[in-house]
Amino acid sequence: MLGERDLIEKIRKMNYSQLEEFAREIRRYIISVVSKNGGHLASNLGTVELTLALYRVFDPFEDIIIWDTGHQTYTHKLLTGRWDVFPTLRTFGGISGFTNIFESPVDRFGAGHVGTSIAAALGVEKALSLQGLKKNIVVVIGDGALTSGEALEALNQIRAQNSRIKIIVNSNGMSISKNVGGLALLLESLRTSRVYNKLKEIIKQGLNDAAELELRKIREVFKVALVGEDFFESLGLKHFGPIDGHDLHDLEQALKGIKNYPYPTVLTVFTVKGKGYHFSEGNPTKFHGVDKFDPDSGTFEKPEGAVSYSEVFGNTLVELAKKDSRIVALTAAMPDGTGLNSFAKMFPERFVDLGITEQSVVTYAGALALYGMKPVVAIYSTFLQRAYDQVIHDVALQKLKVIFAIDRAGLVGSDGPTHHGVFDIAFLRPIPNVEIFTPLDAGDLVGMLAYVLENFEHLNGPVAIRYPRDVEFAKLEQLCGKIEPAEPHSWNLVRNGKNVALLSVGTLTRLYTEICARNDWTLVGVRSVKPLDEDTLNKVVASHEVIVTIEEGTLNGGFGDAVNSFIVNRALAGKVRVLNIGIGDQFVPHGSREELLRYTGLDPTSVERRVRDFLRVSCSS
Amino acid sequence: MLGERDLIEKIRKMNYSQLEEFAREIRRYIISVVSKNGGHLASNLGTVELTLALYRVFDPFEDIIIWDTGHQTYTHKLLTGRWDVFPTLRTFGGISGFTNIFESPVDRFGAGHVGTSIAAALGVEKALSLQGLKKNIVVVIGDGALTSGEALEALNQIRAQNSRIKIIVNSNGMSISKNVGGLALLLESLRTSRVYNKLKEIIKQGLNDAAELELRKIREVFKVALVGEDFFESLGLKHFGPIDGHDLHDLEQALKGIKNYPYPTVLTVFTVKGKGYHFSEGNPTKFHGVDKFDPDSGTFEKPEGAVSYSEVFGNTLVELAKKDSRIVALTAAMPDGTGLNSFAKMFPERFVDLGITEQSVVTYAGALALYGMKPVVAIYSTFLQRAYDQVIHDVALQKLKVIFAIDRAGLVGSDGPTHHGVFDIAFLRPIPNVEIFTPLDAGDLVGMLAYVLENFEHLNGPVAIRYPRDVEFAKLEQLCGKIEPAEPHSWNLVRNGKNVALLSVGTLTRLYTEICARNDWTLVGVRSVKPLDEDTLNKVVASHEVIVTIEEGTLNGGFGDAVNSFIVNRALAGKVRVLNIGIGDQFVPHGSREELLRYTGLDPTSVERRVRDFLRVSCSS
Repeated sequence: MLGERDLIEKIRKMNYSQLEEFAREIRRYIISVVSKNGGHLASNLGTVELTLALYRVFDPFEDIIIWDTGHQTYTHKLLTGRWDVFPTLRTFGGISGFTNIFESPVDRFGAGHVGTSIAAALGVEKALSLQGLKKNIVVVIGDGALTSGEALEALNQIRAQNSRIKIIVNSNGMSISKNVGGLALLLESLRTSRVYNKLKEIIKQGLNDAAELELRKIREVFKVALVGEDFFESLGLKHFGPIDGHDLHDLEQALKGIKNYPYPTVLTVFTVKGKGYHFSEGNPTKFHGVDKFDPDSGTFEKPEGAVSYSEVFGNTLVELAKKDSRIVALTAAMPDGTGLNSFAKMFPERFVDLGITEQSVVTYAGALALYGMKPVVAIYSTFLQRAYDQVIHDVALQKLKVIFAIDRAGLVGSDGPTHHGVFDIAFLRPIPNVEIFTPLDAGDLVGMLAYVLENFEHLNGPVAIRYPRDVEFAKLEQLCGKIEPAEPHSWNLVRNGKNVALLSVGTLTRLYTEICARNDWTLVGVRSVKPLDEDTLNKVVASHEVIVTIEEGTLNGGFGDAVNSFIVNRALAGKVRVLNIGIGDQFVPHGSREELLRYTGLDPTSVERRVRDFLRVSCSS
Repeated sequence: MLGERDLIEKIRKMNYSQLEEFAREIRRYIISVVSKNGGHLASNLGTVELTLALYRVFDPFEDIIIWDTGHQTYTHKLLTGRWDVFPTLRTFGGISGFTNIFESPVDRFGAGHVGTSIAAALGVEKALSLQGLKKNIVVVIGDGALTSGEALEALNQIRAQNSRIKIIVNSNGMSISKNVGGLALLLESLRTSRVYNKLKEIIKQGLNDAAELELRKIREVFKVALVGEDFFESLGLKHFGPIDGHDLHDLEQALKGIKNYPYPTVLTVFTVKGKGYHFSEGNPTKFHGVDKFDPDSGTFEKPEGAVSYSEVFGNTLVELAKKDSRIVALTAAMPDGTGLNSFAKMFPERFVDLGITEQSVVTYAGALALYGMKPVVAIYSTFLQRAYDQVIHDVALQKLKVIFAIDRAGLVGSDGPTHHGVFDIAFLRPIPNVEIFTPLDAGDLVGMLAYVLENFEHLNGPVAIRYPRDVEFAKLEQLCGKIEPAEPHSWNLVRNGKNVALLSVGTLTRLYTEICARNDWTLVGVRSVKPLDEDTLNKVVASHEVIVTIEEGTLNGGFGDAVNSFIVNRALAGKVRVLNIGIGDQFVPHGSREELLRYTGLDPTSVERRVRDFLRVSCSS
């Protein structure tokens, strides 16, 4: 068992060729574990040398190193006491795929969402200074994360705070897909300029003792390299670089240079996403966040005949857009994850990717709706949290017809609590003019999407269609071949039974057909959470003694609450007993989706047991 | 009655001295109406000439002019068909204090919150281009709004979109209070530089036909003026200015210059907030958003002996901070509105204002909590929506002890639907580890704040304390003189009655003492919405036939839902009937707080009637 500091001491004693060998070992280890457990491969392969150099110059146990978005931190984890437990990465009960303050004291601030690191660093610096303490504070942030509003607004506050934080911009030209935005264009022009190469030469020669002076010189060169103006300098920061992020020597010299520099400083480092693994270097987007794969062939193991809801969504939208030129698809840097890739290729003019700017994307979609288009925002449930005010203030208040295709709704699995989409029902339900639909299966998703886009003029405001990070065994061609619109407001009576009725939200429903058949319970597939299908609900309540609500979302404020209030307000409460099943008032850890369904008691076995227990207790009381 | 276009035609025929006289008339009109109705005085006095010049060069009925944050749009409203109805400004049923798409087709995108205009403009441009249309698109945005994440992230996307939008930065050095941030420092250095004056000379002389060329020249001068680099140019935008925003001739020339410029362009315009009215020029912060005042003396009419909850909060925090050096107060550009002004003066080191950056403020506060401090974020309920993800992802998930002092919770009055704080209970309740407290009066606010800060170590995570935009008749010295901590979890039995129990949330409670006495109903003051005071709730349910929940917030997902679920889950539902009173599933318009309480049925008369009706119907059923 390695001691916490052992590897830090070890790498400090290595020479460069030993370090390079160690970097290769780390990469092999990462590839081996990620190929088994899934994870963020490409971003982590990109930061191996950067982390090694950083931890030779700074001390992760003494200094405050804040990694923006934890999915670049596998090497950090390996070097800071988690080498032995690394094979448990992202498994139930194992270590997290992101930084996590509960996992290690050197995970200085947890982050699964981008752009929080600079504000966090400013807060830490303030807290320390008020306590008379002083530490080196370093942020490592991707250029993709720099497109996000929070990162930009915090960047703009650094100088006013008289801060001394050091920001390392890990620039790989990718956020999750290709970066967009003015800042990205600048960095890109820099990357391809000849001056970058000249710069590398200068560093090779100089920079020993008089590092600061030399770095000033570099900065001058750098300014020449820029076509226009320097973004960071315009905000009052010192900007050094670019440095080759895989050259350990250059990295170390540059980091030594900025370490004691008495100003807030940005160092741009160029890395290659997916570096050192043939398949991911060639296709970093494919290897951004991955499930299990075969390390030798770089191919993914995917269940035979399975299609993801994201694929179904994307393909349906393509088919609908062929016939309707008003459809526009929007994403915040997630064309792959949300299934919009083919749409983007097929209709580049009607595809909008604004980078990691959920807020702007939602407002932009509102404007599209107001000015004649049919905007479809494809977004993960957890990231929609970033645009909550825009959904209320820009879209719902103005009754703008924006379709939110909410992907990764429910338990997402190994990405864990920062990524579970378990709050969307609860946070959307209070917003006036919003409708929330929950298709029962892939076919229903196809039909609902077609319905809301074909009946667009009759919508009263925004519509949310939520579906999980899951697959279904079906053929895309069949699903999207001949599309039949499906009216989304009515619930689906899956089977008629006795005494007990399960009202189950969305795709969970198919899990419970067997237990309902076995116990002769009624099963209702809930396709609309807001508005409720009051006709069906009334009938079900009138003809059953026990109502069970089941949802893959938080109970507080969720579907169960809505049903309870319906029953109480209509004075039906004396007539039925109600059991609400959903996610309790706690954050859910990481693990496989199956494990987490069991953990939260949403799997069929648990549901059957809980309903039976409820029947026993209720009857005896 | 003036025709819609009449004033636009009229100002186009005026010479500069006529225009100046008209600007004075507009100012007198604005001051007269705002002194009666309240409103955003200072920002609107700052944009009179800018609007006049803009509407001589651009056409608000043809071009798309998007005003960021509608509170700089009074002149816009006056010129575009609302001269006659302007005296109804902000009154119930009258015109809105912000842009509103339902009020006029030339209010191109409604906005009460800052920073949405650029994303909206990009969306409009895209929608038009997809329909083969082309219009001039102009954004007017304050320099304060430019500190917000959404504005910055959208700004960064302009160049990638090949946009041609024109952005006018209305730079007055203020957001609501003094601006902060690197960008603000740059603009400030520009404002005070001698080159600005030189520039004014050049414009006076040149710029007739060859406007574009001349403007290029200005831009060169401008670049010289900047100490460092130009922020906007670094993002690939053309940056012109600064121009004197009160010089109609200069404004017009500059606007003509950029009108057909084939690039996305920024024009910086310097205005004086509160311009042309002695009292507001001297104190623009005081005159930002105001209630009624005496136009001759510039003094406010405030009810004798009244203190606002904001003042009570601010003064309490000062008293507590005197004895506890770990307390840090944070605001997103609202030191005045939130009552933190004296704290800021007294403890400048422990006061943090990051500009209009709600997201960063919340993450920053999380970092303060993690590194040893007791952060108190004072924020309006409606603006907390901007930081929803940060509350979940940065604070609650990490169980960080951040105190959210949620001001303007409930109906805020004349600012209307963009500003009502009616969603916070519903959006905070689903978040694990969060506690939500609702003091019953000013004394209770003092006591709760003291309690959570003195018992900080025992908190389990973030705490929200919500209070309305309201006053109470009390003396600050008495309230904050000798502070007694008040345990916040227990509800308060205000009076014991029969059959009916009103569970009323927070400061609403005092409204119902009389009706409860008259009808011999029980009145319970709900001080904790999460967790519920289950002991008291159980007792009340056991001893009453009818439970009435009352809250100044949305019913969907709110306190009523929580009580209904409690009752249903404990199978108490057959024993009581429940009436939920709160805000229905609709946005609430603007008006006085009293009018809106009546409108939403929360005033005592309505509540008494509704409860009596409920008793009648329930009994006869």
